Amino acid sequence: MLVTFAGGDAGAWSVERIIAVRGPGLPPATRLSVDEDGGATLPAAAWTLRGVTSNERYVERAEREALAARQPPLGRPEATAAALIPVTKSAAWWELAQDERRAIFEERSHHIRSSLPYLPRIARRLHHGRDLGEPFDFLTWFEFAPEHEAAFDELLGILRQTEEWRYVEREVDIRLRVTSGPDAGR
Amino acid sequence: MLVTFAGGDAGAWSVERIIAVRGPGLPPATRLSVDEDGGATLPAAAWTLRGVTSNERYVERAEREALAARQPPLGRPEATAAALIPVTKSAAWWELAQDERRAIFEERSHHIRSSLPYLPRIARRLHHGRDLGEPFDFLTWFEFAPEHEAAFDELLGILRQTEEWRYVEREVDIRLRVTSGPDAGR
Repeated sequence: MLVTFAGGDAGAWSVERIIAVRGPGLPPATRLSVDEDGGATLPAAAWTLRGVTSNERYVERAEREALAARQPPLGRPEATAAALIPVTKSAAWWELAQDERRAIFEERSHHIRSSLPYLPRIARRLHHGRDLGEPFDFLTWFEFAPEHEAAFDELLGILRQTEEWRYVEREVDIRLRVTSGPDAGR
Repeated sequence: MLVTFAGGDAGAWSVERIIAVRGPGLPPATRLSVDEDGGATLPAAAWTLRGVTSNERYVERAEREALAARQPPLGRPEATAAALIPVTKSAAWWELAQDERRAIFEERSHHIRSSLPYLPRIARRLHHGRDLGEPFDFLTWFEFAPEHEAAFDELLGILRQTEEWRYVEREVDIRLRVTSGPDAGR
């Protein structure tokens, strides 16, 4: 599924802040719209980011089962806060072989193991942009109830200190709230 | 790099045959043109297939080194024969976790180990189409001298008998020869 995130002055999500964590940020926007597979008419936008949901690249069977047992769906009525975190990794990351990337991702950086305790508070969907020629390799979308935003920040803090994150050369952190009721445009 | 293969009546490669190995084939074409990153003007075509070169999905460090020690580049003057093999794997394949796909790919089907003895006779480049929404998940391009086509067929026979190939639901085998000198349009 091709998902397009359009930042501008229209969309169901209100932009609270756009933080350039590493590298260049993104132009200002007050609203964000999310389109799945061209189903919505996208408004004129200040910026547009695209990614596809795809097969897993690192998650192993036992990890998937642990995740599946805890991970909530998108669109929960109480999850009126969201974050869109576009990330690009370095050429050095992509030049690593599969076993080297996997070892950094989980055996050494514990990406999955560190995330599990934060489920089911945080829902997540990963979109891949690199093979589309997009500026960001990954667009990760998170949804949570506003009272869990501190826990979400804690998780980001853990992940950003890992060996895996040394390969991140660009990261933007976009925080959002539903503006027009939990079902509007989601 | 986005690569477009256009089958029709123009292009540096002459189509010798198009074989529907599994599932639907492709419409007839007498020539094939290959475009890298929009650098060429593509002729009107009977069919167009697109894929991107990307990072490795299964190859581990030691395997990459074994491959790198033997694999030839594309464009060798003597490699006037080529094959384009578009393949689509089943939903069941893509629903497997990373460790399950890897185990089928190499530990049980020996995709890399079986291919190594055929190097450096056969040059190869893999293009990914699935995340682009293309009809084929993979487009693999092979180049070899005409006298090595029998060895290439032998390798295909080995791979098509593996557990991995049980997940292939569509495969087309397109054989080609350079028509206008080894450098023309390559």
